Amino acid sequence: MVKRVAYLGPPGTFSEQAALLYDAQAQLVPFSTVAAVATAVASGMADEGVMAIENSLEGSVTDTLDMLIHDSTLLIRRELVLAIEHCLLARAGVIAEQIDLIYSHPQVLGQCRRFLERCFPKAAVEASLSTTDAVEQMLQRERSAAIAGVRAAELYGVQILARGIQDNENNETRFVVVAAEDSPQTGHDKTSFAFSVAQDRPGSLVDALHEFSQRQINLTKIESRPTKQELGRYVFLVDLEGHRNDAKVAEALGKVKAQAYFFKVFGSYPRFDAADASR
Amino acid sequence: MVKRVAYLGPPGTFSEQAALLYDAQAQLVPFSTVAAVATAVASGMADEGVMAIENSLEGSVTDTLDMLIHDSTLLIRRELVLAIEHCLLARAGVIAEQIDLIYSHPQVLGQCRRFLERCFPKAAVEASLSTTDAVEQMLQRERSAAIAGVRAAELYGVQILARGIQDNENNETRFVVVAAEDSPQTGHDKTSFAFSVAQDRPGSLVDALHEFSQRQINLTKIESRPTKQELGRYVFLVDLEGHRNDAKVAEALGKVKAQAYFFKVFGSYPRFDAADASR
Repeated sequence: MVKRVAYLGPPGTFSEQAALLYDAQAQLVPFSTVAAVATAVASGMADEGVMAIENSLEGSVTDTLDMLIHDSTLLIRRELVLAIEHCLLARAGVIAEQIDLIYSHPQVLGQCRRFLERCFPKAAVEASLSTTDAVEQMLQRERSAAIAGVRAAELYGVQILARGIQDNENNETRFVVVAAEDSPQTGHDKTSFAFSVAQDRPGSLVDALHEFSQRQINLTKIESRPTKQELGRYVFLVDLEGHRNDAKVAEALGKVKAQAYFFKVFGSYPRFDAADASR
Repeated sequence: MVKRVAYLGPPGTFSEQAALLYDAQAQLVPFSTVAAVATAVASGMADEGVMAIENSLEGSVTDTLDMLIHDSTLLIRRELVLAIEHCLLARAGVIAEQIDLIYSHPQVLGQCRRFLERCFPKAAVEASLSTTDAVEQMLQRERSAAIAGVRAAELYGVQILARGIQDNENNETRFVVVAAEDSPQTGHDKTSFAFSVAQDRPGSLVDALHEFSQRQINLTKIESRPTKQELGRYVFLVDLEGHRNDAKVAEALGKVKAQAYFFKVFGSYPRFDAADASR
């Protein structure tokens, strides 16, 4: 049976590109929100779900983090890193000088701010819910353009006026593949988890992090999200090098769990290697 | 001379409400982006600027964090906490049953997700660049509504169909007042700063945080932002209890600075006290 992979649609988004990178043979099923992708996997409508978790310029995708913390028992089974190339798209015949309105997702507009200020100082920008929505809005309006990926240009058959217009060349997005189970040990793994500790005592966070440093476990990410209960109360999200079944990782996680108010492992999975992506 | 306070406009936003809470006598000057507010203050067009930095449900306002890290020499002089009450607004005569489209800022739509799913399951939502833009879009379209604050309803003279529609009652936003100088010691202060350390060595972050815990300095917030150089490289943003001129805080900050690649103090300011706000 063909594997069904849910992703944040519609077709043409970078999530679709990531899903194709993950498994080009799978049946890709678009959903309109991160929560819907998670629900599709949890309910068996899809076997796995692909969602963005972090961008090198904009930071974390908070919908994905909040879903992992609050709403789901799904585990992270794989990570993928995709280089993001934004393009300025317009209908056939439109020339740059005519453009007075540019559509895109707010995060994408943020990633192309310098390009827009330099090349289109007089054009208005308008926020869209996705890069694909931006292309559809552009198709409805004279003298407008949209910022989206190459794949959207292919799908809609529109012209690419400019390519690689993001402000920073180091624009990469990290995606995770979620499923009912995570991955077995490969010896080259990462583990993601979340916890919260008493914040009215100096050092409670430091004590928890010390469980890893004293065992020579490297933390590759630390991030905080609101608990949604009170301003100033946080859940910490940590990525570390190693698998949750590695002896020293298991021991450190056990110690943190024992002193935490909230503790949840999001899964262990092979570290992404760019060489894997070009297989 | 009347003090000029820049804020993220247009009038009717929660930033305007925060600016009024901060100084109702000041001349309030709206700007269209966080970067423009900062530039207005840095260039002397305004004396101070008010900008949201964190919401209890949605987390940090990344534009503000990135401006403080990368773009500005302004210092935080004050913090303010505002309870956020979202309202559903419509033109006179419109009744709830007719509404098939609801406009608001994406973050606000996120904060009212449950209300929208329950009460308007068939209505479409559309992202706006601000809550005030949402009201203006609503005024242009039949059978639509907008989510915004009470102040926007007053300014535009529209009806309030529902009040307090946010999913979580603990919806508060923390604002900062930025200026050329921060505040002197009051004995009841907070300090915000940012730093980055070598991340390929286990424990370098823990070592830095240990400088505070061993001096009994409480950290009230820790957060990471991308350095914008490479996925997986972060700047850590920390708020602590105390003033940068307090002896033990100064000593700990000096130790962190000595081992950091990047180090920047955003300022020391009096801790917000809800009682101050009702003076």
